[in-house]
This record gives sequence, C-alpha cells and structure tokens, in this order.
Amino acid sequence: METVSEHTIQVKLGRRSYDIRIRPGCASHIGPMLDQLGLRGKIGVVTDCNVASHYLRPAMRSLTSSGFRPVPIVLPPGERTKTLRTIEKILDELVTEKFERRSSLLALGGGVIGDLTGFAAAIYQRGIPFVQVPTTLVAQVDSSVGGKTGVDHRLGKNLIGAFHQPTAVLIDPRTLHTLPERERVAGLAEVIKYGIIADEAFFAYQEKAVGAFLKLDEESITHVITRSCEIKAQVVAEDERESDRRRILNYGHTIGHALEAMGGYRTLIHGEAVGIGLVQEADLARFQGICGADVPARISALVQSAGLDSAMPRIRFGALWTAMQRDKKVADGQIVGVWPERIGSVRMAPLARSVCRDWLKSVRKRKPRTGPA
Amino acid sequence: METVSEHTIQVKLGRRSYDIRIRPGCASHIGPMLDQLGLRGKIGVVTDCNVASHYLRPAMRSLTSSGFRPVPIVLPPGERTKTLRTIEKILDELVTEKFERRSSLLALGGGVIGDLTGFAAAIYQRGIPFVQVPTTLVAQVDSSVGGKTGVDHRLGKNLIGAFHQPTAVLIDPRTLHTLPERERVAGLAEVIKYGIIADEAFFAYQEKAVGAFLKLDEESITHVITRSCEIKAQVVAEDERESDRRRILNYGHTIGHALEAMGGYRTLIHGEAVGIGLVQEADLARFQGICGADVPARISALVQSAGLDSAMPRIRFGALWTAMQRDKKVADGQIVGVWPERIGSVRMAPLARSVCRDWLKSVRKRKPRTGPA
Repeated sequence: METVSEHTIQVKLGRRSYDIRIRPGCASHIGPMLDQLGLRGKIGVVTDCNVASHYLRPAMRSLTSSGFRPVPIVLPPGERTKTLRTIEKILDELVTEKFERRSSLLALGGGVIGDLTGFAAAIYQRGIPFVQVPTTLVAQVDSSVGGKTGVDHRLGKNLIGAFHQPTAVLIDPRTLHTLPERERVAGLAEVIKYGIIADEAFFAYQEKAVGAFLKLDEESITHVITRSCEIKAQVVAEDERESDRRRILNYGHTIGHALEAMGGYRTLIHGEAVGIGLVQEADLARFQGICGADVPARISALVQSAGLDSAMPRIRFGALWTAMQRDKKVADGQIVGVWPERIGSVRMAPLARSVCRDWLKSVRKRKPRTGPA
Repeated sequence: METVSEHTIQVKLGRRSYDIRIRPGCASHIGPMLDQLGLRGKIGVVTDCNVASHYLRPAMRSLTSSGFRPVPIVLPPGERTKTLRTIEKILDELVTEKFERRSSLLALGGGVIGDLTGFAAAIYQRGIPFVQVPTTLVAQVDSSVGGKTGVDHRLGKNLIGAFHQPTAVLIDPRTLHTLPERERVAGLAEVIKYGIIADEAFFAYQEKAVGAFLKLDEESITHVITRSCEIKAQVVAEDERESDRRRILNYGHTIGHALEAMGGYRTLIHGEAVGIGLVQEADLARFQGICGADVPARISALVQSAGLDSAMPRIRFGALWTAMQRDKKVADGQIVGVWPERIGSVRMAPLARSVCRDWLKSVRKRKPRTGPA
C-alpha cells in the first residue's frame, strides 16, 4: 500500500462550513468519503463525457460499494452546456428519479460541471446537498471553492446563479494527468493570481517550481493546489457574499473577462484570458503609479514561464471598455479595479475611462513587444 | 386626510430580518416606502394582467415620483405561468434592461407572482433585492412571508426554487376589494390554519368575525391579516429553512396538496383544497386518538361558515396515498403529519399507510354527510 499525503482545509462559514480534502488518488475512492460526510441514498453523479471516460466508472463503483444509489447524469462538455436549459434537464432527471431533500448531487468534472451541479442542487426542492470532485486545475484551485454556482445567459456569463456551499470539496491532484495540457496551463493563471493578491512567498515558490509543476511532479502539484485553496478559503470566509473583500479574487479578471468575451469565448479559454489580465492589470496599476515597473515585469515573466501569453491583443478601446462594463461587479456603471501595490498585496480603486484609454494608447506605442516589461 | 391604522411586524432572521407593513391604501404609495428601505434606480415591477389593470399604473406613478426607474414586466395570470420558462423570460428582460446587483424587483400580485419574482430575484446575478406587495389574501397571510420562492415542475408543484428573503412585505388590505370572492374565501383557509396551529383566541375571534370579514369590514380584514402574519413570522423566525418547527405550517396541506394535485389544479384552487385538508386532517387526528371529536367539529363549522367545503371528496385510497407521497416534505417515503391536540396546539408524527387507509374507509361509511362532524 502506498503512502499519500493528505491535506485538509476548512472553509469557515458558520453553519455552512466545509472541508476541502486534497488527496492523490481519491477520485477512485469517493464512496467512503461521502459516507463519512453523512450523505446517504440517491446521489446524482453529474459529469461530462470527457471526464466520464476516465472517472465515471470508478466513481460509480466506489459509491455503490458504500451503499449509495448513484444515478449518472452525463452532459456534453464545454461552456456552451452551461445554460438554464441544461439545468432543466438535470432537474427533470432528479424529479423523474424521485430525488428527495436528503438525496444529493456530486459534481465530477471541471468548472462548468461544478457550476451546473451546484446550481441544480441549489434550486432542486430549494436546496439539496452537493459535493465537488473537481478534475481540472482551474476547478480545483478556484471554481469548486466558495459556493458560487450558476449558468450563462446568451448576453453574458454567469448572470444567473446562486450561492450554495458544497458539503465538501474532494480534490485528487492526479486527475491533472488526464487533463489536456492547454487546460492545465490555463489553470496556472488562477494560481499565479493567489500569489499576487495574498502571498509573495507563494509567488516566489512558483517562480522556482513552475517547471516541476508542468512536469506533473506530485509534490509540486499538491502544494500548488493546497496553498491556492487555503488562500481562496480564507478570502471566502471573510466575505461569503462578495460584498467587498472577496472582490480581490477578481484580480486579472476585469481585463480577462473582457478579452474572453470579445473573443466570443472561443479564441481564449478562461485561464488564458486571465493570464493576460494578470499582467495587463499590473501594468495598468503601474501606469496609475500604484506600483513600480518591477511588479508587472515579474508577473509577466512568471506568466510566460507557465506557458501563457502576457501581451495585450490589438483591440479598440471602445470595444474593450464596453466589454469591461458588462461585468457583474460593475455598480452604477463604475468599474472598480483590483490593483497590486506589490506582489502579495492589492487594493481596490475605481478605474476612470480616460485613464484606461490613455493606458491602452501607451501600450500600443510599445508594440510589437510581447510583454509590458 | 384620512387616518389609517398601520401595523409593522418584524420577521427576525438575523442579517436577513425584514418588516411586514400592513397599511390600508398603501398599494398606491409604494415609492416613498421603497425609498425608505434604501432601494434605488431600476426596479422591475412584476405583475399579471389582472392585477395590472387595477394597480400597475398607480404603482409606476408612485415609483417614478420617488426617483425610481420602474420597468413593468406583465405576465399571464394563473398557476400555469409558474414555470422555469417564465423565469427565463423575466431574466431575459433584466439582462436586456441591464439590471445590476443593486437593482431590485417588486412582486405586485398573488402567490404565483410572488414566487416567480422572488425566484428570479434569487438567481439573477446570484441574488438581488426584492419587495413583496401581495394583492391576494393567501399571498398576504402566507406566501409573501417566509422567503420561499420557486416554480412548478410538470411532475410536481414547487419542486424548483430557493430561499430568498424579501427586503420588505408591504400589504394593502384594500386590495381585497378587487379580488374575486372565490379567492378571498379560499385565502381564509390559511387564516383558519393559524388559529388551529398556534392561537385558540385567534380561532375564536374568527368564529365571531368571519361574517364581518366577508363583508370586507376594514378593521376585521386588517386584524386577520396582521395576526396571521405575526404567527407566520414567528414560526419562520424559529426555523427559516424548514428543518423542523416550520413544518407545522404544513397543517392541512398533506391532504390539501394531494386533493389539489388529484384535481389537476383545476377543480379546487389551493385554499379550497386546504380548507378540506384542515377539517379532514383534524378528523384523521381524532381517528388516531390525538384529539377529541370536538376539534374536527369546530374546525368544520368555521370552515363552512367561511364559505369553504369541508367534506372529503370520493377518491380511491391508492391514488390519495400516492399523491400524498409526492409532497416535498416526505423523507425516505415516510409521511410526517401535523396533528391538532386541541385548537391552538399541534404536534408532528408519522402517518402509517394502514391507519390512513382505515380512516378513509371510515369516512366513506359516514357518507353522504358533508362534514365529519
């Protein structure tokens, strides 16, 4: 029998507190873990066909062995599945299978599966328990933790949803082995973000260990996931409903989301857009005199060594500004940005249209360099 | 200027506490009341075309005068509108009109409008504020208070939804003047329920005052609404999420919901089915020896003097039992009933299939009498 290191992080939310457990290999042994959590009976295993081909069978087997009655719900992969129509399909399945309030759901997959499953769990009979078993890096370090669930509207991402905390998050770092490299790399953008917003030492660790991580060294992967979850858990515990402090998690996403939306969610996947956002928002902070040139330079170097783009694509300011304003966090038309003062510390401040326009002009003049460094 | 009595009841739910304000004539003066609550800017006024013909114009005028930008969202009337498809339509409207997290919704109408509006508010951008302005008796004394929101599924009522507490409930007892008599009478079933589950004196008041209420005497109406809201507010504050205590509000609804569903939601409207449920569940309590024959007799007399049916329709036991099991509150197939020990006090206990079957047989033998008295 092999020895694996296990890490447990508590997300402290009063009566809604829950654990994140990080344990290599656990995706094939979820039954006993769910049993320990007090779950019983029917459980809907929501996944997509890509993930299903690797993990559905061992998950079903483990659940059945532990006395559960698992019902597989396999969806098409990709962001286009994240609609109210898919929620309706999941709910139809739960009603038909006579799921009760004590039944539960399990999200086995990436961010799309987690968001859909959590939202279905939030609104079926006004809320049933659900467990996250994230299988992508971005889901493991970001979307599975914090209780945000929801779907897209054709006019904007994540416009429909609910806060619904999971009963637990069970993370198997080995699932990254079956993840396409592009998605593994994209997930690193969120990891780098945590260093920038909260932990200079973690940022420095990544500067050294990014190579080992990319080679799937188990210790590096496990550390990166654990430390990221710790930071996210702490921020979420301080501000569950995103009234204020939680917004620092939005760092890199104001420009990131806009770029993602402008490419119609096809050109850039989420993490790739955020990678550019991390660098460019730091450069915009430098432009405003909030930090020195060393900050965007160091971020750009790490983003690039992770294998991500850092350069701002050529776009028109008007289109960028409009896309930035579509963000949910915009209040009364005002964009509030998150700005690094140094690596490990950020502050929030409004962004004036004229400042953003002048900055974009200055970026264009620096072309054709790839980064802002 | 006329003098009107105003009553304010606080629903105590920690940070989610809110007031129920009962004030004759307030439906035409909601603008200043919403302004006082700290709401601003865009507000979606969700209503149905019946209610709109009486109250939409004064509501819009009052909101505009107070500086709001009201957007009317007028839906077809009736329970058939209570679907996820209608929620999608409301959300489309909010996205198109660029509603932000600080925008709000106003539910102007009966229970269907309140449930739809609350649910839309619960899931738009993961939750925006909403205010209830209930215009039917059943909405005023029951559905607008407590934060239950949601829609029906074709296989069952209220299977999809969320808990989302309103920012306030503003009740104008005069809206009952424009309510069809059938609905006014049906609403009394919930009022009678409050006396049975929590307040013998309130039950006795109704025995005396039901005539004045039916003649729309303002003092009687206002007292009935106020005392009902007080009882509901207290029960909800004790158990927001319906884990236990809140279930006493289900009294009369185990049989009531079943009868309503068996008639395809057409033969009996909700309150009419609950009226029968109040009497028959008391009779079932008597059959089990939980209370004496005086309890169902007194309930039956009040239900009948309110103008409601009290007799059990001729139905097959199998169909009834199946319909009773569809209820959301059923856990592991077990039906837990709410049983009066006397007027003003109830307790919960499971109901065995055989007991229910024997009781129904005994009811049939007593035919063709109309009540169990």
